[in-house]
Amino acid sequence: MSLLTVGSVAFDAIETPFGKTDKIIGGAGTYIAISASFFEKNQNIVAVVGDDFPQSMLDLLSKRNVDLTGLQIKQGEKSFFWSGKYHNDMNSRDTLITELNVLEHFDPIIPAAYQGVDYLMLGNLTPQVQKLVVERLETRPKLVAMDTMNFWMDIAMDDLKETLKVIDLLIVNDEEARQLSGENSLLKASKVIRNMGPKYLIIKKGEHGALLFHGDNIFSAPGLPLEEVFDPTGAGDTFAGGFMGYLSNTDDISFENMKRAVVAGSALASFCVEKFGTERLTEINQTDVENRIEQFIALADFEMTLQVG
Amino acid sequence: MSLLTVGSVAFDAIETPFGKTDKIIGGAGTYIAISASFFEKNQNIVAVVGDDFPQSMLDLLSKRNVDLTGLQIKQGEKSFFWSGKYHNDMNSRDTLITELNVLEHFDPIIPAAYQGVDYLMLGNLTPQVQKLVVERLETRPKLVAMDTMNFWMDIAMDDLKETLKVIDLLIVNDEEARQLSGENSLLKASKVIRNMGPKYLIIKKGEHGALLFHGDNIFSAPGLPLEEVFDPTGAGDTFAGGFMGYLSNTDDISFENMKRAVVAGSALASFCVEKFGTERLTEINQTDVENRIEQFIALADFEMTLQVG
Repeated sequence: MSLLTVGSVAFDAIETPFGKTDKIIGGAGTYIAISASFFEKNQNIVAVVGDDFPQSMLDLLSKRNVDLTGLQIKQGEKSFFWSGKYHNDMNSRDTLITELNVLEHFDPIIPAAYQGVDYLMLGNLTPQVQKLVVERLETRPKLVAMDTMNFWMDIAMDDLKETLKVIDLLIVNDEEARQLSGENSLLKASKVIRNMGPKYLIIKKGEHGALLFHGDNIFSAPGLPLEEVFDPTGAGDTFAGGFMGYLSNTDDISFENMKRAVVAGSALASFCVEKFGTERLTEINQTDVENRIEQFIALADFEMTLQVG
Repeated sequence: MSLLTVGSVAFDAIETPFGKTDKIIGGAGTYIAISASFFEKNQNIVAVVGDDFPQSMLDLLSKRNVDLTGLQIKQGEKSFFWSGKYHNDMNSRDTLITELNVLEHFDPIIPAAYQGVDYLMLGNLTPQVQKLVVERLETRPKLVAMDTMNFWMDIAMDDLKETLKVIDLLIVNDEEARQLSGENSLLKASKVIRNMGPKYLIIKKGEHGALLFHGDNIFSAPGLPLEEVFDPTGAGDTFAGGFMGYLSNTDDISFENMKRAVVAGSALASFCVEKFGTERLTEINQTDVENRIEQFIALADFEMTLQVG
């Protein structure tokens, strides 16, 4: 099948307790596309960069079968830039710099060849831009998934709620689920959020794994215990990319298959945090991914016959 | 088989955002014995109470096949009393009152009939008392498990480390594992702690489930998403009781069976938090427990064949 990703392709500068980087390649769209490429060989991207973005990185995406027709390159402008510093526990971070640059007036133009795409992943962006993309697709994709963040809940909650009405699946972390719903219990939060529009919900819990909700079904995917989280940047986007890449490749949106997609996304995300930025994701191969998925299977596996007492 | 529990049988007074109780029945030994009784019909307990402890509660334990020969009743003395108040997020609490009373000079006398017990669960107590129990058993049980808490790490770390050398399995929560090991990564913590003595380690993560470690094996049990955590008091002890009751009843300490025991303990703990104190545990029956275990099985279940990309 085919997957369309809409998301930032950008520069990041990251500081963690383990070190800091200069400007490196980042952006939700970048992580999603690279991660999805381990499963889906038919990918499109709608994004915008300035003329400062390195051709080598665009070549890397092309080589991974990401069609770049929808990637706008704005001459004389600069790419989006974010800089952040993680605290010692890696669970919180401070944003040091946000330069919107080309993203400030991003118009998500959908190339004609992208019409009819099967799966749509809306990376974290202004809710209005996310909604616009859905409206511009002439045929409804089989599944429309989106990511968002607390920032939009703080400054654009009304827009966000409008966008939630037109999507099928929302991917947020536990803190965001609590803020969006106003509920502390993730089970209650899952109901409130699904009443806002999306039939499916994924709540990411970092080292504790992820929860998938649909109707009365709940799936809990484990988090792989790691020696070290070197840099969490992009882990959420990498999860989303692995999830959507797996779904698109298998073309099956049953709950059973979505579980597998959650595990696939979790496996990819567990690589992402091992090095700075996208570095680790560009080193690993299919066998590494398969072995990591095997670890997730072993981690959660148990057989139990009920003979209580 | 047979299970011996050593732990406090006591009074609690609890305040949560949902309400508060007068003096109600509590204590690690109480929760462990009630929870284990859903699986193991051959239970012993070593504990101490004052003459203020209600006969009705002792009768309840007897009816659940807990032999009370090892329960000392100190005439003219008062039972251990703890009072605490939970914060709004339920993840932290303040201790308001701790009256050691009979527990101050607790001498864990092992009745002759308890010698040769198969499984031993040391509830949270002074590490010295826990060690004394192991020394007083003439035959080494098949598995010696213990619980402890940050309090003992703060004031009796040396004693605790001595006790860790004589046990097989430690049950702590994530915060305690981090404090005991000095490591933030639970994987690293699991290695440091197992180098202190216990071959097996369980790290409880509250709503996020539990991790079981042995050698290079790791099992991640899910946490059941709940509408409400009404009162977390005793949930950890209830987990330990369900875990040890299941192991003792099945008499199989293979890693595969320990996984099932972790799920059994998790199921019992998920009931415990639904009402104040031991109330919910004394309402439910075998069928309720089986149904809850089924929910855990469904929650974690996925089938995945590897055909990446």
